[in-house]
Amino acid sequence: MLVATLLLLAHGPAEGDEAVAELSRDDAQWVMPAKNYASTRFSGLDQIDIENVGDLQLVWTFSTGLTPGHEAAPLVVGDTMYVVTPFPNILYALDTRDGSLRWAYEPEPERASQGVACCDVVNRGAAYFDGKIFYNTLDNHTVAVDAETGEEVWKTRLGSINRGETMTMAPLVVKGKVLVGNSGGEMGVRGWLTALDAGTGEIAWRAYSTGPDSDVLIGDDFEPFYPQDREPDLGVLTWPPGRWEIGGGTVWGWISYDPELDLIYYGTANPGPWNHNQRLGDNKWTSSIFARNPDTGMARWAYQWGPHDLYDYDGVNENILIDLEIDGAERKVLVRPERNGHMYVLDRVTGEVLSAEPYEYITVTRGIDLETGRPIEVEEKEPRENEVMREICPAAPGAKDWQPSAFSPRTGLIYVPHQHLCMDMKAVETSYIAGTPFVGAEVEMYAGPGGYRGEYMAWDPVQGEKVWAIEENFPVWSGTVVTAGDVAFYGTMDRWFKAVDARSGELLWQFRTGSGIIGQPITYLGPDGRQYVAILAGVGGWAGAVVSAGLDTSVPFGALGFVGAMTDLPEHTAAGGTLYVFALPEQGPAQ
Amino acid sequence: MLVATLLLLAHGPAEGDEAVAELSRDDAQWVMPAKNYASTRFSGLDQIDIENVGDLQLVWTFSTGLTPGHEAAPLVVGDTMYVVTPFPNILYALDTRDGSLRWAYEPEPERASQGVACCDVVNRGAAYFDGKIFYNTLDNHTVAVDAETGEEVWKTRLGSINRGETMTMAPLVVKGKVLVGNSGGEMGVRGWLTALDAGTGEIAWRAYSTGPDSDVLIGDDFEPFYPQDREPDLGVLTWPPGRWEIGGGTVWGWISYDPELDLIYYGTANPGPWNHNQRLGDNKWTSSIFARNPDTGMARWAYQWGPHDLYDYDGVNENILIDLEIDGAERKVLVRPERNGHMYVLDRVTGEVLSAEPYEYITVTRGIDLETGRPIEVEEKEPRENEVMREICPAAPGAKDWQPSAFSPRTGLIYVPHQHLCMDMKAVETSYIAGTPFVGAEVEMYAGPGGYRGEYMAWDPVQGEKVWAIEENFPVWSGTVVTAGDVAFYGTMDRWFKAVDARSGELLWQFRTGSGIIGQPITYLGPDGRQYVAILAGVGGWAGAVVSAGLDTSVPFGALGFVGAMTDLPEHTAAGGTLYVFALPEQGPAQ
Repeated sequence: MLVATLLLLAHGPAEGDEAVAELSRDDAQWVMPAKNYASTRFSGLDQIDIENVGDLQLVWTFSTGLTPGHEAAPLVVGDTMYVVTPFPNILYALDTRDGSLRWAYEPEPERASQGVACCDVVNRGAAYFDGKIFYNTLDNHTVAVDAETGEEVWKTRLGSINRGETMTMAPLVVKGKVLVGNSGGEMGVRGWLTALDAGTGEIAWRAYSTGPDSDVLIGDDFEPFYPQDREPDLGVLTWPPGRWEIGGGTVWGWISYDPELDLIYYGTANPGPWNHNQRLGDNKWTSSIFARNPDTGMARWAYQWGPHDLYDYDGVNENILIDLEIDGAERKVLVRPERNGHMYVLDRVTGEVLSAEPYEYITVTRGIDLETGRPIEVEEKEPRENEVMREICPAAPGAKDWQPSAFSPRTGLIYVPHQHLCMDMKAVETSYIAGTPFVGAEVEMYAGPGGYRGEYMAWDPVQGEKVWAIEENFPVWSGTVVTAGDVAFYGTMDRWFKAVDARSGELLWQFRTGSGIIGQPITYLGPDGRQYVAILAGVGGWAGAVVSAGLDTSVPFGALGFVGAMTDLPEHTAAGGTLYVFALPEQGPAQ
Repeated sequence: MLVATLLLLAHGPAEGDEAVAELSRDDAQWVMPAKNYASTRFSGLDQIDIENVGDLQLVWTFSTGLTPGHEAAPLVVGDTMYVVTPFPNILYALDTRDGSLRWAYEPEPERASQGVACCDVVNRGAAYFDGKIFYNTLDNHTVAVDAETGEEVWKTRLGSINRGETMTMAPLVVKGKVLVGNSGGEMGVRGWLTALDAGTGEIAWRAYSTGPDSDVLIGDDFEPFYPQDREPDLGVLTWPPGRWEIGGGTVWGWISYDPELDLIYYGTANPGPWNHNQRLGDNKWTSSIFARNPDTGMARWAYQWGPHDLYDYDGVNENILIDLEIDGAERKVLVRPERNGHMYVLDRVTGEVLSAEPYEYITVTRGIDLETGRPIEVEEKEPRENEVMREICPAAPGAKDWQPSAFSPRTGLIYVPHQHLCMDMKAVETSYIAGTPFVGAEVEMYAGPGGYRGEYMAWDPVQGEKVWAIEENFPVWSGTVVTAGDVAFYGTMDRWFKAVDARSGELLWQFRTGSGIIGQPITYLGPDGRQYVAILAGVGGWAGAVVSAGLDTSVPFGALGFVGAMTDLPEHTAAGGTLYVFALPEQGPAQ
């Protein structure tokens, strides 16, 4: 019998860090984007279960007053809920008792930053540490806000919109360092992860995704699993001369942390431009994953999901850190539903790919070669310049994009919201002009086989197989949470917030929200000891920009080709950010 | 024992008109803004009552994707709900079963119209008649939309933003004519009511509020009650030469209709400019009420609430048509909570003022002289140029503004959401430039005695007294509805939707909405036979422009002086339009 157990984080870090790790184990609160450092998005709360979830009702709501896509997970610290909005990146502090507004912090990012964001002006959330809330603004600042008063503690500028940079990801705080990355892979931005001192906002280190080893923070400790990755300066030598400087590899997804190994894990985005003919070589370290020491930023290992990426398969997805019994041995693994349609299980100590089974319909690869770690590409699907290549599956957003999965140690399953899309793609020559799009591709997306565009599935990472799946009309662009009540929650772009049985996938309850959902659900205990579930509705993001940005549905190339797959979304939902908080009925009438 | 009975509408009109009157008596639906021609906003539904209203829960929601103030009442016709938004005045058709979007009609009003709207870009709703939905766009068009398909049937332009005109009111359809009026009293607009043929959109007649009798549609049938109102051409002669052409008297409030008397009733807004020194005379027929024949538009009677208005007391409030037993005789009356703080009871046959008791704190008048019908003004409160006159109560929005009251024939009480504000005012000389503000006053508002800013009260129109009242921190800027379950609903600007006992005022239930509420609640039966209650949240309007328009709270003169009274509103709510639909729990778990 194979058993999956949740990694328990145990030893080592500084006092504040230990405190936040402790907080992350307290199911009453939700203090970091993925609930815990292992990024399981699993809550031990079980008041709401498969028997009673059908009675769930809405307790209070809060409008953000904003219409871009709302992708953030709220945080709950004590009796305060923190909500970060899309541009202009307001931080609201709400009383969890009744949703009263305690304060709002308004960083007022530069308006021009909206013009360089590729795919709606989203923000993916905040992190709590040591009395402060940390998050990023679209105009490349990381801010620290006093969690009690809403006063700004510090604000550090990390990039420049003039180079096309923006910041949209949610930070992770590890050992007193705030870890943040940049966005802008479609603008010729050079990607990086930066660590800031949580107390002062000073930059501690910055690790670039491309360039010489000194910039990538590759040194003597670097021991990647695959031999081809061990050469020096691959971040320069796998590029045409100078191209690495405008080569993408941005860091706008998720970071995990293993305190025992003392390693952080995060992925890098696609190389730029999309037109691969303009960047011969493996384009390291784009579409890759790094394991790094959080104190120094120095890389321990790296692995490239997509050497010389052809289809905009960013490698930024979530890394779920769990221990699995595989072939009779307990392995410390990292599970990753990758954009290229494969569910990777990596040894997180070494970076070895243990398995990589397809979980979606794929036409462009014939699996992953476990000897070399490289995808086996279908050569006739390689885009050529000025020629439309058809039936590329998955499409550019991949089989799964940013929307993070969850893992339940009770069921041993990974819960994955994702999409089911293919695309036609024409590569075209493009030139780099700082701060402008650097894509070189015309894309049109459409539903994959069967005509549906999204799926919510449960995956067994040990057996490497899909256990159950729910087809959805639209891409499932929301995050998900799974609980000890064996209930999994997710949202749809056509305005349903759903609760399903984590073992069977049976739909147990659904609620019609005001706008489509691309946010991340959380669950927590209120001051009254009851379990609550919260979700931001507010359609948008890359998938929903047709609504949130009011794009012309007759131009399928809009939103980097996503509009073509979503022309009917405006018939289902308008935009508008609203937080919904649900609970079971109280004993006696509500007041 | 005094008895109040609801006027039952009985005879006369054309077939389609009879059909809509019939529909207005069907409590399953809500086909005109005020529920019925008598404007009682009373529903005979009683599934939700004082015993079970505490169990009310949210069933579905819908985001409009817009952040200006949402003042409209939804309509329900059959199993479709129609929601008109503020600018850009989208009409959404929703399936009442689960809130699915059926279609959206987008008239795309001129963007520049936003610049000439005085007080947020609100819209107060639509009316149904003969298979069509009728409403106004901010850029002065009345549109007719096929209720089934969402296709535009006709669209008629009625005014010009270049003259400062906009349209924000909800139409009423009477005898096949769509009755609509204009806004813009703060821009030197000349007010009018216009009747359009419901089938074709052609203009049938237009009655101006100022000017010669031929323009005002005053003829041989005109029989005002008070002798001073019977002179010819008062719309010219009570003004300095030519000033009536830019003198206001716009028609942006409510229209009622008595089919038996075959008279429509509606009010006219303040004279312009606010600086009264620039317009000596009574300024007829601003701040007045007209009773007119709906076929011809010809006036039967008129009465001026505010001759030579000093304080921006528009006369546009709702007219509730009921029959009351007064001094032993059954009288056909019109009850009107007026901006000047008096609750008027008029004989709606003749226009005689039967009573006018104060319902708010008033410093600027000492009552209404029932001999002459004129307010008895406190002369020392008359604003002089370049001098700040303090403690003017009520403030410019009056004791009650646009937010419509309800009347229950079961309790005999009028339910009035209103405000409790005073102001300081300085009159300053102003010049008329077409399409620009023409106000001539600097105003700063603040809470009235006791420090609260709003009130929801029940008033006995026969005894002429307040029965109970609930003080609210902010102006109660929402409408209200009262039901045969003896429950009254209203909303607050700090995000509470409340149900109170219609007899005692006891708070029975409240729900925390996402944004503050300035919409109008309705109730109806769903296809499943259950009673539902719907309300649009989305703070804004004149009172909430500080949030919806993001005004600077350090400038109290903003929003024509309203900002000064609302500097703390942003601490309580953000903007954002969301429809909320509530019902009692179903038997068994919800699905």
